[in-house]
Amino acid sequence: IETKLPKVGTTIFTVMSQLAVEHKAVNLGQGFPDFEPPQPLRDAITRAMAEGRNQYAPGIGLQPLREQIALKTERLYGHKLDPNTEITVTSGATEALFAAIAAVVRAGDEVIVFDPAYDSYEPAIELQGARAVHIPLQAPSFGIDWQRVRDAVTPKTRMILINSPHNPTGAVLSAADLDELAAIVRDTEIVVLSDEVYEHIVYDGAQHESVLRHAELAARSFVVSSFGKTYHCTGWKLGYAVAPKALSAEFRKVHQYLTFCTFHPAQVAFAEFMASTPGHYLELPSFYQVKRDRFRELIKPSRFKLLDVPGGYFQLVDYSAISDKDDVAFCEWMVKEGGVAAIPLTPFYDKAPGTHYLRLCFAKSDATMEAAAERLCKL
Amino acid sequence: IETKLPKVGTTIFTVMSQLAVEHKAVNLGQGFPDFEPPQPLRDAITRAMAEGRNQYAPGIGLQPLREQIALKTERLYGHKLDPNTEITVTSGATEALFAAIAAVVRAGDEVIVFDPAYDSYEPAIELQGARAVHIPLQAPSFGIDWQRVRDAVTPKTRMILINSPHNPTGAVLSAADLDELAAIVRDTEIVVLSDEVYEHIVYDGAQHESVLRHAELAARSFVVSSFGKTYHCTGWKLGYAVAPKALSAEFRKVHQYLTFCTFHPAQVAFAEFMASTPGHYLELPSFYQVKRDRFRELIKPSRFKLLDVPGGYFQLVDYSAISDKDDVAFCEWMVKEGGVAAIPLTPFYDKAPGTHYLRLCFAKSDATMEAAAERLCKL
Ligand SMILES: CSCCC(=O)C(=O)O
Ligand SMILES: CSCCC(=O)C(=O)O
Repeated sequence: IETKLPKVGTTIFTVMSQLAVEHKAVNLGQGFPDFEPPQPLRDAITRAMAEGRNQYAPGIGLQPLREQIALKTERLYGHKLDPNTEITVTSGATEALFAAIAAVVRAGDEVIVFDPAYDSYEPAIELQGARAVHIPLQAPSFGIDWQRVRDAVTPKTRMILINSPHNPTGAVLSAADLDELAAIVRDTEIVVLSDEVYEHIVYDGAQHESVLRHAELAARSFVVSSFGKTYHCTGWKLGYAVAPKALSAEFRKVHQYLTFCTFHPAQVAFAEFMASTPGHYLELPSFYQVKRDRFRELIKPSRFKLLDVPGGYFQLVDYSAISDKDDVAFCEWMVKEGGVAAIPLTPFYDKAPGTHYLRLCFAKSDATMEAAAERLCKL
Repeated sequence: IETKLPKVGTTIFTVMSQLAVEHKAVNLGQGFPDFEPPQPLRDAITRAMAEGRNQYAPGIGLQPLREQIALKTERLYGHKLDPNTEITVTSGATEALFAAIAAVVRAGDEVIVFDPAYDSYEPAIELQGARAVHIPLQAPSFGIDWQRVRDAVTPKTRMILINSPHNPTGAVLSAADLDELAAIVRDTEIVVLSDEVYEHIVYDGAQHESVLRHAELAARSFVVSSFGKTYHCTGWKLGYAVAPKALSAEFRKVHQYLTFCTFHPAQVAFAEFMASTPGHYLELPSFYQVKRDRFRELIKPSRFKLLDVPGGYFQLVDYSAISDKDDVAFCEWMVKEGGVAAIPLTPFYDKAPGTHYLRLCFAKSDATMEAAAERLCKL
């Protein structure tokens, strides 16, 4: 059998997590918290199961959950959404990204992505028979050079895929960036797909510049978010996509045949928890800022050079002072010999620039960060 | 925005479930039990959440769960599977079907499906730029005319999609059918996709003829199954796909970017429950046979004509004696005026034959069946 995805192997997250287990390394690779979702959320799932919420949820997601998402979006971004036609609950943000791409991208189309790019984007594009057009972000701040975007747009451009706060670099887009993007897509048929799964994790008092704050962009965008990143439950696989009615209608056509619906008891639980504890996500920036600052403090004595972290829960470090191995080789060496798993950046590039950066996840308990730092400081 | 799926509207299951709620009808439409999954399974999910199994599961599924699936498959069908390379856990059977199709079907290919066909098949095929080739099953037994299949095979045929026990008709394939299929695909590149989500629900002492019993077919097939149908928890969205190593590798490339993994606590729970209670599914045939026979008894006095039900949890009935409306119109009338929601067959056909059949789900408590029957007997 000839593969439809010749560039794809096992995702780097799986590879590094397996190596971490094998070598008993501290796992700062794959991005997940090593602490737990709120107890009331877990209790609410148990209660929902006891109350018989064990059969199909509505395919588009539970009504009260969509209503909570609409409330949150209005409160935070001043954008009113119709829960019936503009919000769809998905099996994690990964499904939402795939469904948005499958809904509008056709064979022969081009989709602009920014490298390093989350590794699910390109395969989803290629499965449509379309082509990812890669624009590199500029290290070390990883901003977008909008002139390069203007130059890359062709009549075949169907979608521009942005991600802020950005994984793996932590970069965030500004309101001015969104204006640049709006000017580029104005009077075109280009759809924006905005991956905002770290929307609640921005630092130093900054505000997340959601596409939903930008009325002109919001009118032509899919915005994807994740309950896993916000509520410390990446393994529950709940996410959602927001888009204007016409785009949502196309999204839902795909979603209903991709997964139909997602784990019903968790939808009940999130609807309850968001209603009773609307402030949970308001505390996330300070919750993670303490972790970010602690982790940076802990590895300051090491030979790694720390890059700035405006958003997300990943620290990029430059390991040039330690090794001139390429980043994949260095990560393999580090998980085996150094006892810490990280994520190299090369797998997120079409043409890797050969920078010596690693991504370290700091969504971890103090004990985990300390154990990792002790090892990292020895390298 | 021009749609990629011009034939697709909201799935009939959602439409009928909404109408059922609106008109306070007894819902025998969308296929789901109105009774609960085993208590120990729900308890095991609660325990898994308390034990911190809330972050990503391995993308291919939890090792102990894949091992239980392998044990079951060997015990039931005499087919040995390698859990590491041949089994992948998915977000329900729907995702498994989509991923199998996306993994091997390319633009320009043809996929043979049998009408009435489950409504997710064709959109999944069309999203690959491929074409579904429809072969009607012959009412009232809904068997496959293999000569028509032979005639339909072309050099473009990439896949044949079978489904036994069959939804919506309840028909089951025999060992002789599988031999016919094997003879057709022998010496071709055709892959078989076998939807066996009702594998444990066959009646009158019959044995389910899984493709996995047929070594020659198993070597070129995806076999899809569902925990939801077997353990009464359709809303938990857990399924799996089995295929030889090379096909599974392609399947996993797609799956990892479609949903990556599925609700982790439920995987822990099923691994435990299948190990401790391997006989659960052995009791399903008699469990559902009691329901089937009770339901048939209850609606015998009605003017509906009952078709045979060899497998699955749906009863087909002929309503010709009541109305000469088409089946969609009759279902709409019945949910509004008759107080019972059913599923018409037309949405599962490329060219509907205009038969006067409805599908009624009998995965229901006695009280539900009695309430429905009382109304059905009045029509
Ligand atoms: C789906 S596994 C990867 C998790 C993640 O988002 C990351 O580590 O970047
Ligand atoms: C995914 S909703 C449809 C459930 C089902 O399998 C059916 O009713 O046939």
